[in-house]
Amino acid sequence: MTRKIRIIGVGLGAPRHVTGEAVEAMNEVDVFLVPDKGERKSELLDLRRALCAELIENDRWQLRTIADPERGPDSERDARQYREGVAAWHAARVSAYVDVIKALPPGATVGFLVWGDPAFYDSTIRMVDRIAERIDVEMRVIAGISAIQVLAAEHRIPLNAIGGPVHITTGRALIEQWRRDLGTVVVMLDGHLRCRELVAEHPDLQIYWGACVGMPQQALVAGRLGDVIDEITRVRRRVRDDLGWVMDVYALVPPE
Amino acid sequence: MTRKIRIIGVGLGAPRHVTGEAVEAMNEVDVFLVPDKGERKSELLDLRRALCAELIENDRWQLRTIADPERGPDSERDARQYREGVAAWHAARVSAYVDVIKALPPGATVGFLVWGDPAFYDSTIRMVDRIAERIDVEMRVIAGISAIQVLAAEHRIPLNAIGGPVHITTGRALIEQWRRDLGTVVVMLDGHLRCRELVAEHPDLQIYWGACVGMPQQALVAGRLGDVIDEITRVRRRVRDDLGWVMDVYALVPPE
Repeated sequence: MTRKIRIIGVGLGAPRHVTGEAVEAMNEVDVFLVPDKGERKSELLDLRRALCAELIENDRWQLRTIADPERGPDSERDARQYREGVAAWHAARVSAYVDVIKALPPGATVGFLVWGDPAFYDSTIRMVDRIAERIDVEMRVIAGISAIQVLAAEHRIPLNAIGGPVHITTGRALIEQWRRDLGTVVVMLDGHLRCRELVAEHPDLQIYWGACVGMPQQALVAGRLGDVIDEITRVRRRVRDDLGWVMDVYALVPPE
Repeated sequence: MTRKIRIIGVGLGAPRHVTGEAVEAMNEVDVFLVPDKGERKSELLDLRRALCAELIENDRWQLRTIADPERGPDSERDARQYREGVAAWHAARVSAYVDVIKALPPGATVGFLVWGDPAFYDSTIRMVDRIAERIDVEMRVIAGISAIQVLAAEHRIPLNAIGGPVHITTGRALIEQWRRDLGTVVVMLDGHLRCRELVAEHPDLQIYWGACVGMPQQALVAGRLGDVIDEITRVRRRVRDDLGWVMDVYALVPPE
């Protein structure tokens, strides 16, 4: 029996971020599987439920949470240990999902709602590839608006210089990778504003920073890195204190 | 008098690529300004008109074409000449747009429909920044699904390796920039499949290629670069022969 799986990028949490194609795909789904991440759980679950209620026209959809395996702190590990840790965590998730999918009625379509775009720093496609090694799967992926794009739109900037490159990386890798000829460097998954380590040598970089972009709590700061890093640190802390969490993203643009 | 300008990313030509937020913005617009690019003109104009007809609920919207200044061939120039050529071409466009906008009724909202996302390799934001130096403008930008994202979705791949970077560049810059530690390299605006120049030294790169992604004419090829480069060349030529043009994009992924 082939299981239909839809991996649907839904943008940043508001129904108006969602494309018509994603809405069509959401309407095909019988059961949305949602990793239960503990903290922030009820808030993200509520956002998904509100999206479905607003955008789905049938009454048969369900959200089902699946407990996420435990995962230790990342910050102290080196790159190899980090990759191994992520791989082990994915394997445990795969088993949990396979069990749930096998128990669904034949013909049920399974959906995953992915914040942003499944192509950027999201593990869902990889996980469904692993699921597909164990059960027969027909997978479709629908792109969604990513935080990178909303950051640029809200700051009203193109990401690339004319003809220039855009390099997207993580906070973890920023310092070892940064070079001026990478062009605009977009940093995701940076829990520690690692760009501070570039201030001494490269204070003239332009930074475009945003927290909770596209959401009601959105905060933006832009300016010369050396001038605004302290303001960004303050605003980031304020957002985290208000919400209990903060998701942020930024672009570093070399001066012309 | 402040002019409202909306720069709206509309994805790749089908109404279902458009987000709800973009639809809202399209419904605010009185006059959409469209560069008249000569060749391909009527086809792209028809696509825009069909999008507006499908997604806008009022009767007041208009499309107005604006003749694009002449621009010589790029391929023979060096990088500095290329940038200068682009800058001169933008300046001539800016003057044409300022004249048209000044002649609109007071209070009219101006719209630009951008294929893909205005943040990636599109000149509209830069052009409106230049317009804003000459008339008073209130600009908003709405992100759209880019070809990069649809390429990844259609091939059902995440763009980054786990924790790895994604580097987006042009065909023009690919050969001088390419290094394995850039991670996944996404190439846009490559009229000549410059990745062929990487085959001899890096035949094991995985390539995910697509032409007209997200459109009915979509063609996809994936595989080991050394194995599939000839097939991609053939398919690309066939699409171009069929349509009279081809837009393609690809991702080069280092083997693990």
